[in-house]
Amino acid sequence: MKPNFSLRLRVFNLNCWGIPFVSKHRADRMKRLGDFLNMETFDLALLEEVWSEQDFQYLRQKLSFAYPAAHYFRSGIIGSGLCVFSKHPIQEITQHVYSLNGYPYMIHHCDWFCGKAVGLLVFHLSGLVLNAYVTHLHAEYSRQKDIYLAHRVAQAWELAQFIHHTSKKADVVLLCGDLNMHPEDLGSCLLKEWTGLRDAYLETQDFKGSEEGYTMVPMNCYVSQKDLGPFPCGIRIDYVLYKAVSGFLISCKTLRTTTGHDLHHSTPFSDHEALMATLCVKHVPPQQNPSSTHGPAERLQLINVLKEAWTELGLGIAQARWWAAFAGNVIGLGLLLLVLLCVLAAGEGAREVAILLWTPNVGLMLGAGAVYLFHMWEAKGLCKAQAELQHALGRAREAQDLGPEPQPALLLGQQEGDRAEEQ
Amino acid sequence: MKPNFSLRLRVFNLNCWGIPFVSKHRADRMKRLGDFLNMETFDLALLEEVWSEQDFQYLRQKLSFAYPAAHYFRSGIIGSGLCVFSKHPIQEITQHVYSLNGYPYMIHHCDWFCGKAVGLLVFHLSGLVLNAYVTHLHAEYSRQKDIYLAHRVAQAWELAQFIHHTSKKADVVLLCGDLNMHPEDLGSCLLKEWTGLRDAYLETQDFKGSEEGYTMVPMNCYVSQKDLGPFPCGIRIDYVLYKAVSGFLISCKTLRTTTGHDLHHSTPFSDHEALMATLCVKHVPPQQNPSSTHGPAERLQLINVLKEAWTELGLGIAQARWWAAFAGNVIGLGLLLLVLLCVLAAGEGAREVAILLWTPNVGLMLGAGAVYLFHMWEAKGLCKAQAELQHALGRAREAQDLGPEPQPALLLGQQEGDRAEEQ
Repeated sequence: MKPNFSLRLRVFNLNCWGIPFVSKHRADRMKRLGDFLNMETFDLALLEEVWSEQDFQYLRQKLSFAYPAAHYFRSGIIGSGLCVFSKHPIQEITQHVYSLNGYPYMIHHCDWFCGKAVGLLVFHLSGLVLNAYVTHLHAEYSRQKDIYLAHRVAQAWELAQFIHHTSKKADVVLLCGDLNMHPEDLGSCLLKEWTGLRDAYLETQDFKGSEEGYTMVPMNCYVSQKDLGPFPCGIRIDYVLYKAVSGFLISCKTLRTTTGHDLHHSTPFSDHEALMATLCVKHVPPQQNPSSTHGPAERLQLINVLKEAWTELGLGIAQARWWAAFAGNVIGLGLLLLVLLCVLAAGEGAREVAILLWTPNVGLMLGAGAVYLFHMWEAKGLCKAQAELQHALGRAREAQDLGPEPQPALLLGQQEGDRAEEQ
Repeated sequence: MKPNFSLRLRVFNLNCWGIPFVSKHRADRMKRLGDFLNMETFDLALLEEVWSEQDFQYLRQKLSFAYPAAHYFRSGIIGSGLCVFSKHPIQEITQHVYSLNGYPYMIHHCDWFCGKAVGLLVFHLSGLVLNAYVTHLHAEYSRQKDIYLAHRVAQAWELAQFIHHTSKKADVVLLCGDLNMHPEDLGSCLLKEWTGLRDAYLETQDFKGSEEGYTMVPMNCYVSQKDLGPFPCGIRIDYVLYKAVSGFLISCKTLRTTTGHDLHHSTPFSDHEALMATLCVKHVPPQQNPSSTHGPAERLQLINVLKEAWTELGLGIAQARWWAAFAGNVIGLGLLLLVLLCVLAAGEGAREVAILLWTPNVGLMLGAGAVYLFHMWEAKGLCKAQAELQHALGRAREAQDLGPEPQPALLLGQQEGDRAEEQ
């Protein structure tokens, strides 16, 4: 690699709001999005909520010249909604579907049926290895009473772990997507602390777009005040996050967002705003890399966020176990009622009522059985994430106890450091 | 790292057959297993089918002195059954649950409820990074009519991808577990070709144990002829697989298996045989490493196995879609019958019969709905694996077309090679 090596990377991210039969002006918006992407020629366009594979195929065809490489991430029953279009050939592809993603009986929220996931694409650009991740986490339907909080925190942890373990040989890591979390939310902090990813909006010195970088704004005609909840001015839940490992320096030259209205057209691309980042990667000697030091303050921050996530998952586990126990009790009562109904049916007095009640009772028991199994599954998934957090917390505390000097390797398991140390 | 660096690694693997209320002499076998592990002091003991968390806790307590580090991998409703005991501290832990794992309505086979997974443990041993994986794939209940073949191939591919993407910075990779596949089965070949892992049984020069290295043998009193199917002499489905990356050389000094009977006790540890391997890792200059070249013959082998897996998944997709379509038709017929029953109930002639049939019809439709959703899910999961295989196949063919010279980097995406090439 030449010492003056430099790479410019133009990235586009958008949650496309492409729900068949529900999202307004879907075909028209897809067409205009395709035209825009063809006109701008980004290096990489990462899209979420492209729920219909036909929409992906339409875009693939439309963009085939400017973006010869494309991939659609399939999962769950409906799909993950994630896809990518790239100017550069994709070297490797894989994906991870989150273990927990809402409740199947919350049919109106639909997330469970989607199989929310994180997709990974490996690129080799001018001798540099870029790991690009695209994701979409569980929606937040109510900020005041968020029944999906534990699931979203578990998803954020799985996302952080997936990035951490799959990017060990990458020079540059890029994560785009709709995290459905505000910048200061627990899941966002966990993700950033564990992976070391930095937020393009906070890092760039040249930002143009919506106020405060909001990616859902009231000016957008598809956004209702209900969508924004207690934040009438807007919310920032879509991100471009990045980092470079030792030997490289990455910076965000410019960040642009759409602003909810388009001068040339009547409607915006989506109910979310698009993010357009120009990143610059430079080759630097490792000792000049500011991201490779983790002082005691950073360690403490990591320990605090790990602790907080551990506690949140604990609350989720208690809740899941409560529901499983409740469903278990319903099954028990149903069994008792079944015996009673059989006795009544054998007698003369209330035979007809007993026969009539038999089927709904069996139905209720089957339903309770499904609820029981689902919440047992949920508890196991949360316990798994909590056990991993517990282990990470133990390791972080050990590193802290070893003294005030920076020990990045001990904290994040970066093998280079450990190897040098153990020799 | 010193040039004469050498590391000896003693590994134990066993499918413990620890099904509560079903497996015979479970408590006694767990006790004896614990005594044996304490006596032998392996570096690493990787266990499968420890379905009861109480059994894990029992072993953890019993082994706490000789194996201070331990982890239990939770997933699904019952659990993955995987756990590990280690003499060395575990640096990092993560796991991946397979997207597809049988059918929920095959309750007697139970696999779907387990959440079969692969667990990863990262160790730092004398400056060397060891990634140890433990897994258990879907059981094969009938070799002649294996309805789970596509799922097992998809699991083998996910396992291979998980290892490939998470071990890029590991010096040594170790995979132990019950793959439920014979050595020459499609899934086994796919796993070995994609990851470059080698089979300890085939590599070692010092093997002692059961005939042909079988891990389920007729001499074992817990094994019936039905378990062995068309292989009355035994089957080899449990493995110790390993590889070292450039700069290291790994060899299997000795491999031992139990043989179905124990001279001192009346019963064996499990219905599977245990594997005990002594591995030796040496530091060598990269050019002496025989595993770093991939000639045209190896490339062709990889292409063939990718093609075969692609075809097998295609058959699975067709089957899944057939079931979804069948369930869709049942729902349609159920809806028609429902309309008919409503008409009959409104009339006088057959009102009672109509009312009586209403509930079973609704039940049938709900059941068919669940089957429809499940097989849509299955088809998506298989399509996802097939798309990844398709991409890998394209890349492998490109590498082949580039000429007869070894191009390992182009084939397996090893970035080092690509970087040198692009500069």
